[in-house]
Amino acid sequence: MSNLGEVVLLDCWVSPFCMRVKIALAEKGVEYEARAEDLFGGKSDLLLTSNPIYKKVPVLLHNGKPLCESTVIVGYINETWSSPPLLPTSAYGRAQAQFWADFIDKKVFDASYKIWTCKGEVPETAKKDFIEILKQLEGALGEKDFFGGDSFGFLDIILVPLTSWFYTIEKFGGFEAKEECPKFSAWMNRCMQRETVANVLPDPEKVYEFVIMFRKMQGID
Amino acid sequence: MSNLGEVVLLDCWVSPFCMRVKIALAEKGVEYEARAEDLFGGKSDLLLTSNPIYKKVPVLLHNGKPLCESTVIVGYINETWSSPPLLPTSAYGRAQAQFWADFIDKKVFDASYKIWTCKGEVPETAKKDFIEILKQLEGALGEKDFFGGDSFGFLDIILVPLTSWFYTIEKFGGFEAKEECPKFSAWMNRCMQRETVANVLPDPEKVYEFVIMFRKMQGID
Repeated sequence: MSNLGEVVLLDCWVSPFCMRVKIALAEKGVEYEARAEDLFGGKSDLLLTSNPIYKKVPVLLHNGKPLCESTVIVGYINETWSSPPLLPTSAYGRAQAQFWADFIDKKVFDASYKIWTCKGEVPETAKKDFIEILKQLEGALGEKDFFGGDSFGFLDIILVPLTSWFYTIEKFGGFEAKEECPKFSAWMNRCMQRETVANVLPDPEKVYEFVIMFRKMQGID
Repeated sequence: MSNLGEVVLLDCWVSPFCMRVKIALAEKGVEYEARAEDLFGGKSDLLLTSNPIYKKVPVLLHNGKPLCESTVIVGYINETWSSPPLLPTSAYGRAQAQFWADFIDKKVFDASYKIWTCKGEVPETAKKDFIEILKQLEGALGEKDFFGGDSFGFLDIILVPLTSWFYTIEKFGGFEAKEECPKFSAWMNRCMQRETVANVLPDPEKVYEFVIMFRKMQGID
């Protein structure tokens, strides 16, 4: 796989949105330089000028041209480095994948954020909402091994990084996703057996430590 | 242009999201049947079974297979009926269009909703936020005639339907987008000269009457 020029990622290890980009690049065999942004110590000028609208990671710079928003970036990676294809061959299959990627972007992070930033005991409604979202995703998975079908693809890349925060969410929420959504859990395990995923997703304990530090900094507790 | 089978749209005349789909189909010369949903009198069984996640219009049924979420549907229409192409030819151009479509979906409706559902006088912050979003879009437009460049395309289709609510927003907000954002306003006028747009966008007075009725039903005022 040719690299088609210079690829730089403005990165943060704990961001599931950066993990998406790293998994997609690994699936395509693209070499890149990851530049860690210090999100608390001040963002780099390159980040601020490359993403003036949101000023957030990830930003992918391909031959110096910036791309922002992780779902858009993963789509760009899939189109630019064509092998292996990450999206279905049919227009209908691609539209279904885009629908669920949008569902994940609208629902999963917000629902989990309400749990891990909660002051005091997490309300039952917040837990119920989170589990309901997982059950809807379980419905979309059906009896397939991966969201794309037989093989790991676009939608798996969009979703699996968010699971690196599940240990933290479960600790704060006092529930186990495994018990509530066994098929979803089995899918997570299948993804984790994949080198491109296992190499990118951080240790869940480290995410938990990060969240504890973040909550202290924000004066939560 | 062959129709490639039966095309049905579950529709609502006042929804800017349904307008997107109708403009895209008109641009491609696709014949379709629009079935008006009575959103206050009860949704049809077909809507509920075709869009079990959101239970909302628009839904496009292509040979009986449902597609949901307007931005996804417009992308599907563009891929399925290939001429004329609505997205740029380069992967980078397509990614930029997707970025701004996502920006519009995240920002414009929510900011306008805060104005037209406001109880009592609209706060200055709500007006300022709305105008700031238009100015960001004006920045993305730059000196181009359309968001896609020289010709009307994907991003214009995503954005222009939302402008059919601007008269209502301006009446409640007590400002004029034309004065605040003259380039944006000139773009709106260019789009309205296009038959596919002018035929689909409703009379702004009718949208205003709808909003007055909606506010009464919701007990606002």
